[in-house]
Amino acid sequence: MKIEINRSSHVPLAQQIYQSFTDRILSGYFPSGTRLPSVRQLAKTLQVSPVTVMQALDLLEKQQLIERIQGKGIFVAVKNNVETEEPEEEREDGSLFLQIPDYLHRTQQMYYNQVLAQINFSSPIVHPDLLPTEILAQSISQLVQKEPEILAQYGEIQGDIELRQALAHYLMNEGIKVSPQDILVTNGSQQGIDLVARCFLGPGDIVFTEEPTYTAAIDIFRSRGATVIAVPVDQEGMRIDKLTALLDTYTPKLIYTMPTFQNPTGYVMNQKRRRELIDLTRHINCLILEDDPWSEIFFDQSPPLHLKAMDRYGNVIYLKGLSKILSPGCRIGFMVASDMILNRLIAAKTNADMGNPLLNQKVILPIFQSQWIRRLLKELRESLKQKRNLTLQLLKEYAPPGMSWLTPKGGFNIWITLPKGANTIELLSMCKQKNISFLPGSACFPSDIEWNHLRLSFSNVDEEEITLGIKEMCMVIGKYLSSLDRQKGQTPLF
Amino acid sequence: MKIEINRSSHVPLAQQIYQSFTDRILSGYFPSGTRLPSVRQLAKTLQVSPVTVMQALDLLEKQQLIERIQGKGIFVAVKNNVETEEPEEEREDGSLFLQIPDYLHRTQQMYYNQVLAQINFSSPIVHPDLLPTEILAQSISQLVQKEPEILAQYGEIQGDIELRQALAHYLMNEGIKVSPQDILVTNGSQQGIDLVARCFLGPGDIVFTEEPTYTAAIDIFRSRGATVIAVPVDQEGMRIDKLTALLDTYTPKLIYTMPTFQNPTGYVMNQKRRRELIDLTRHINCLILEDDPWSEIFFDQSPPLHLKAMDRYGNVIYLKGLSKILSPGCRIGFMVASDMILNRLIAAKTNADMGNPLLNQKVILPIFQSQWIRRLLKELRESLKQKRNLTLQLLKEYAPPGMSWLTPKGGFNIWITLPKGANTIELLSMCKQKNISFLPGSACFPSDIEWNHLRLSFSNVDEEEITLGIKEMCMVIGKYLSSLDRQKGQTPLF
Repeated sequence: MKIEINRSSHVPLAQQIYQSFTDRILSGYFPSGTRLPSVRQLAKTLQVSPVTVMQALDLLEKQQLIERIQGKGIFVAVKNNVETEEPEEEREDGSLFLQIPDYLHRTQQMYYNQVLAQINFSSPIVHPDLLPTEILAQSISQLVQKEPEILAQYGEIQGDIELRQALAHYLMNEGIKVSPQDILVTNGSQQGIDLVARCFLGPGDIVFTEEPTYTAAIDIFRSRGATVIAVPVDQEGMRIDKLTALLDTYTPKLIYTMPTFQNPTGYVMNQKRRRELIDLTRHINCLILEDDPWSEIFFDQSPPLHLKAMDRYGNVIYLKGLSKILSPGCRIGFMVASDMILNRLIAAKTNADMGNPLLNQKVILPIFQSQWIRRLLKELRESLKQKRNLTLQLLKEYAPPGMSWLTPKGGFNIWITLPKGANTIELLSMCKQKNISFLPGSACFPSDIEWNHLRLSFSNVDEEEITLGIKEMCMVIGKYLSSLDRQKGQTPLF
Repeated sequence: MKIEINRSSHVPLAQQIYQSFTDRILSGYFPSGTRLPSVRQLAKTLQVSPVTVMQALDLLEKQQLIERIQGKGIFVAVKNNVETEEPEEEREDGSLFLQIPDYLHRTQQMYYNQVLAQINFSSPIVHPDLLPTEILAQSISQLVQKEPEILAQYGEIQGDIELRQALAHYLMNEGIKVSPQDILVTNGSQQGIDLVARCFLGPGDIVFTEEPTYTAAIDIFRSRGATVIAVPVDQEGMRIDKLTALLDTYTPKLIYTMPTFQNPTGYVMNQKRRRELIDLTRHINCLILEDDPWSEIFFDQSPPLHLKAMDRYGNVIYLKGLSKILSPGCRIGFMVASDMILNRLIAAKTNADMGNPLLNQKVILPIFQSQWIRRLLKELRESLKQKRNLTLQLLKEYAPPGMSWLTPKGGFNIWITLPKGANTIELLSMCKQKNISFLPGSACFPSDIEWNHLRLSFSNVDEEEITLGIKEMCMVIGKYLSSLDRQKGQTPLF
């Protein structure tokens, strides 16, 4: 077991140890019932005082992540582990796994990706029926007949030049003026986050994120040894006032934000805050990573300008995934950054995989070249709005008291809040038995975890399943909340 | 500028600083003529004594990487930079690039990837004419007609199950008994190296590699902050006696090896050493990464058993790329590891890119399912043997005195040695003017750089170009060696 401790960090040691164990427990790395080493052993391994270990354990116990059983030891609590589809085999003591420590202690994205049920409200991806599969299939057939040689060629590491030209043109309409050499093609937008992290974040570096935020982003930043500092969000986006206050204590190297239809909340950062965020970076030497998975999927009016469109100092990196809105089978994303920054990102891409497959880039090319993309997005907006409306209508009808949400104005998700005291990891275990899955909100909190939220993605589920799923789920939630209520006795939850 | 120093390392500080500057200079990060900070400034920035800085600068000067000009300052020397195709713009002082330090100081793979000439002896990839482009094109057309839905689906992160089944079957014939769940599909074999590094290597960890070795592997290990310790090779592969001696000083977490037709030398590790290497790891808690880019491409007899086939303790990770021998346009590689290790690698793959595109995996599937792969490999062996033979014959005829090489028994490369005193980076600049490129051997040395080698890849060049290219190149080398000879005056080089 390797727990990295940063002794020069502003974060107290006990908090760091607490964080490390939390990451491992919630990622299924330490499954329920795992016996942890004793206080003395931990103090020795971690080279800290037993008092510090005790403080960390207190925090873990308070969060109900561990249980201390008198005379027996310290164990990972049962309630915060979801059984994954392929339960891990019994680990022999002293197995290689534990002997060769790794650097990936927070892998909640992987963990919840293994808990997908038939009615899958977990994955913010588009239902296959809504994607331009036929057009892509045609494009491919024509392509390999006309240019079979693309199968035998490596592409440019930075990405196919024709595709970059088409993307630059597409971005122009989005208010982002770039040339093809400012663009780097990636293997989905996830790789974009990863490339930025591996370039610019290392042990002890500070990254600011919204709280809650995208699970995998936290996983990635933490795997680099970076310290993730959470900035609260409200309906108008990241709280710039809070961010400013945090600057007194921390100097971030990166600010990671999803300004439009934020994942998981669906909130949109308003124009004023966008401007403020950009202006802030004039005074601090810091990059902004603007993650834009689905700003095109707006249901009322189009969202404010992209941060990149307002970028004055060349330190905004714009990141866009196309898997979600176009073709998961092709896995294409891309990023835009200024010269010096992009040069480093290309170096990272070279190390990572020597470039995207050429085939897939050529496949989606005609969709951008022909402006089909506009029509497709329009259709997608309409279909997803229908799904959202149906989901909201069903929630309104069937939700038990205590369940609350806001109407998302775009994107693929609804962020649902249950009363304090509820734990949506427990709830997920119950829903799984009804073949329903969602993402527990706890996976989206980098530090002070809130347990009573869940993210419901309506994009990947057809109307029949939405109807069935929401009804069932509301029933399970109702039962769950009543049982909590009974447990608490006289103190009603709502 | 960020130079990472590991104060608890066995490697002296001056050596570490020397290494960091060398990496940056040879990766074009500090271009020729760049003025470096003063000794005092460096000592302050790096928080070391001026004496240590002086020692590091002495080492750099001895290697002719810098020049100290009295009264002017310290400058990056001219001879060790190859002009890349897109020369970087003048950097303004205090640019963002320098203000936001990154973690990628050694990027020689990217650097030399930008110096490819018309007659490209740089890239160990297969010439498009030799690849089964037609078969793949057919496969794709049928595929998208029959199953267009694959374009709309995310694949499993671990890789398409059908492909993993076919690969498991393929590996059986290679003497590696695995089931599909022991396999992880990657975006080329390069990603495999990267996944292992990001899982298991961090600042201060030790990795043993052959010396010389694969450029990108060094780049990747170094980007993780790991210390690369070089183990010499001879014609029978990695020197296990030297490795054993190094164990007295260093405890490696990973041993990276290419046992068959090693890159860049082409050497094959004999059966006895393979056995010894496996047995060694019984006593040290260490992973072996067996990189196998082209063991199928043997010209005489088939090579010894894979290390993975002899793996007794479950700590060998086997890595195979298919881009090189099948379809660069699809970019598929895969790796095999035992349970616990593979689980961590899948976590890394999740962070890295959430899985390979499904399309490409389905495209190459029939080639493995139908056993076409065997016929294709047979044809490839024959064609590449012809290319090798032609290259050797031309070298024999035209090489100037002082140039030496061994006949590679497989793979894509010939490792050529010039007399001591020659610098193949200078030579590359001269060859580029004749539209010829190769890989300077210096890019393959993790620590004590030898300047007088070059790697010549014959696989990607057609017969006409081989003929023209080798003749021209030998002529340039002849001239270059004579000029060196004249410079040295009475001391002849050979």
